[in-house]
Amino acid sequence: MAVQTVAGNTGVSLGSADALSCRECGERFPLGPVFACEMCFGPLEIAYDLPAGDPEGLRKRIEAGPNSIWRYAPLLPVPADVADKPNLNPGFTRLVKADNLARELGVTGELHVKDDSGNPTHSFKDRVVAIAVEAARAFGFTTLSCSSTGNLAGAVGAAAARAGLRSCVFIPHDLEQGKVVMAAVYGGELVGIEGTYDDVNRFCSELIGDPAGEGWGFVNVNLRPYYAEGSKTLAYEICEQLGWRLPDQLVVPIASGSQLTKIDKGLRELIALGLVEEKPYKIFGAQAAGCSPVSRAFKEGHDVVRPVKPDTIAKSLAIGNPADGPYVLDIARRTGGAVEDVDDTQVVEAIKLLARTEGVFAETAGGVTVGVTKKLLEAGLLDPAATTVVLNTGDGLKTLDAVAPTTGPSAIIRPNLDSFREAGLA
Amino acid sequence: MAVQTVAGNTGVSLGSADALSCRECGERFPLGPVFACEMCFGPLEIAYDLPAGDPEGLRKRIEAGPNSIWRYAPLLPVPADVADKPNLNPGFTRLVKADNLARELGVTGELHVKDDSGNPTHSFKDRVVAIAVEAARAFGFTTLSCSSTGNLAGAVGAAAARAGLRSCVFIPHDLEQGKVVMAAVYGGELVGIEGTYDDVNRFCSELIGDPAGEGWGFVNVNLRPYYAEGSKTLAYEICEQLGWRLPDQLVVPIASGSQLTKIDKGLRELIALGLVEEKPYKIFGAQAAGCSPVSRAFKEGHDVVRPVKPDTIAKSLAIGNPADGPYVLDIARRTGGAVEDVDDTQVVEAIKLLARTEGVFAETAGGVTVGVTKKLLEAGLLDPAATTVVLNTGDGLKTLDAVAPTTGPSAIIRPNLDSFREAGLA
Ligand SMILES: [Zn+2]
Ligand SMILES: [Zn+2]
Repeated sequence: MAVQTVAGNTGVSLGSADALSCRECGERFPLGPVFACEMCFGPLEIAYDLPAGDPEGLRKRIEAGPNSIWRYAPLLPVPADVADKPNLNPGFTRLVKADNLARELGVTGELHVKDDSGNPTHSFKDRVVAIAVEAARAFGFTTLSCSSTGNLAGAVGAAAARAGLRSCVFIPHDLEQGKVVMAAVYGGELVGIEGTYDDVNRFCSELIGDPAGEGWGFVNVNLRPYYAEGSKTLAYEICEQLGWRLPDQLVVPIASGSQLTKIDKGLRELIALGLVEEKPYKIFGAQAAGCSPVSRAFKEGHDVVRPVKPDTIAKSLAIGNPADGPYVLDIARRTGGAVEDVDDTQVVEAIKLLARTEGVFAETAGGVTVGVTKKLLEAGLLDPAATTVVLNTGDGLKTLDAVAPTTGPSAIIRPNLDSFREAGLA
Repeated sequence: MAVQTVAGNTGVSLGSADALSCRECGERFPLGPVFACEMCFGPLEIAYDLPAGDPEGLRKRIEAGPNSIWRYAPLLPVPADVADKPNLNPGFTRLVKADNLARELGVTGELHVKDDSGNPTHSFKDRVVAIAVEAARAFGFTTLSCSSTGNLAGAVGAAAARAGLRSCVFIPHDLEQGKVVMAAVYGGELVGIEGTYDDVNRFCSELIGDPAGEGWGFVNVNLRPYYAEGSKTLAYEICEQLGWRLPDQLVVPIASGSQLTKIDKGLRELIALGLVEEKPYKIFGAQAAGCSPVSRAFKEGHDVVRPVKPDTIAKSLAIGNPADGPYVLDIARRTGGAVEDVDDTQVVEAIKLLARTEGVFAETAGGVTVGVTKKLLEAGLLDPAATTVVLNTGDGLKTLDAVAPTTGPSAIIRPNLDSFREAGLA
């Protein structure tokens, strides 16, 4: 493939990132825009030479850093001066202590919501794209690209605009106008493909292998090993915001499964570096019933994940063949967690529950995690007395359609006090 | 009026807030839910006993504080333990160094965009509502209320939900569904009024004077003196984020004009406290041409503002009779600034310019300030070599309609490389 010619690059320096290593066979490769092992076709991930030995010093250095993911630059595949370059500075979003929600759910321990709707384009995708931008710069790519039906399109468009890179985002041609506007407003190329999302992905794979795609960084394909590392920052932030402490339980949404595996990786790094005290933690995965291949495999005791055709309002999680599914199963089982799913009605109820109790308006993906949290508590699988963190990875403004049919005024009145009293509002 | 009976309250403690003082005649009143002077009907504002004398200590205390407006609690009418209470923790949003935009506009000095779309409900309203919530708690109000056509409704609904207060928000009954959903999702009372926005406001005034409105805090009416102070935090954050330095020029949107006057107040406080070095600064006001009474008065050299009937896509700025208009004129003239307006086409162009250059998708109000910045630079009224800060007070996701007609895919292609090449994208 054309892009692999760059893989032999020497002199690429991305902070403490040392090499690419195969998740399956362990083979190591130099840092480059490759994503699959030459030996076994396993997925590649970043291996680091992390700054061990002085946890107190590292903690101080992090705390003195910027209010963004760049405070963790020493633990990421980015150059040391990353914060000085034009980028969107995502991350360090609110960890909301959700006492009202805890009361409603019967949680007696600490319940927190990690609210990633505060990111620049209002989803966790800003984290992963920011890392991909640095990799793109390091490898000399001039166009940033992706296929998307939603959050990723906006995140790539915005990040490329600010970084001074060309962007070219591919979407199915029949997306809702709102999503098209959000993706197009940043002024990059936005290309509608006459076909399904699967057709879009197939076309992108073709493009990566063609000379026409030379110089193109597809954030979630040939830059995927770098991109995926951005999700580690969720783990770092949660622990720092808890006062450098591991939570007991985390509830994480599953799309490809990458985010969940990287959160686990981030937690293990913090332990290894001595930044948090080692203790057991459980990771729970959350899916929508209409796209729940990992949940099904978990419940059936399988190690492999059978692909499904998604049918759910939680579109940002609607990946029917999740690449990291087997790793998710492994982590849920190893940590003593579980994988569960909720149907679309429960997703909508959970969005409203979180909004009503904590003033956080979550995307459908946040409805999935809150809904699954409720279900796991009811089933006795989550400990109500423990410290639990639930992720909201996106913004309700982007999935208004999910709640619109059941959300409206409590009354319509005429502009006078009699009408007000009649409505029983006084 | 019913609410004034609470005004005699003693023992209300709101940090360094000392009293209410009349902006016109200077008369002082005890802290209470009142907004107009008994002597002259002038607007009341908060007088402080600020923690002077140790600027270095205060600066350190602020820097060690939370990443929200509560780091400035000593300078706000809030209790010292405000950060421990359930609230949305707004503020400390990004100050984006806008080098790409500067290049396009011919700015040779530093250009920054203060991006308040990162607030919990994605507008600066979270700042002012958070202060109003503290006042509501202090005065024993159990219902938080407002009239609104947009941002404020969501901010009040969300803040009340988290604070455990009842909320009752009044809107014109025929608002677009998206805005209704955003206001209703937090589960408070949302009341549609059969009438115009003016009818809604008239009804609210009636309700405040009626026993039915007892125990109700209207954030922008009887809690207005407290509420308005929230805008000071924009000034504090800008200076702290510039390294405890005053900018030379600020471009601020004008709706009621309150925000601009409070930013000026905040800057003067920082100087008085020795937190920044004193030097001249200029404040520029920005309006949409379709609602530009202050701009017109400025250009005509008047001290009074003649009301207009708004007709602009910048709905969050569409106040035809801005209460603080005269104070805005005074500040613009005193500091050597100006007030300017741009038409709706220029607003849309400016939204796209900011998105394309910096990856920031602004609300129409942000289009107004960026558009006015461009116009003032072209007119030679803004110094291109100075340090300039432009405010974006809201989120483009909430005003998608403004850009939708002119924002779409650059091409629609079939899912193959030939079609891709034909479209000239390779
Ligand atoms: Zn391998
Ligand atoms: Zn007076």
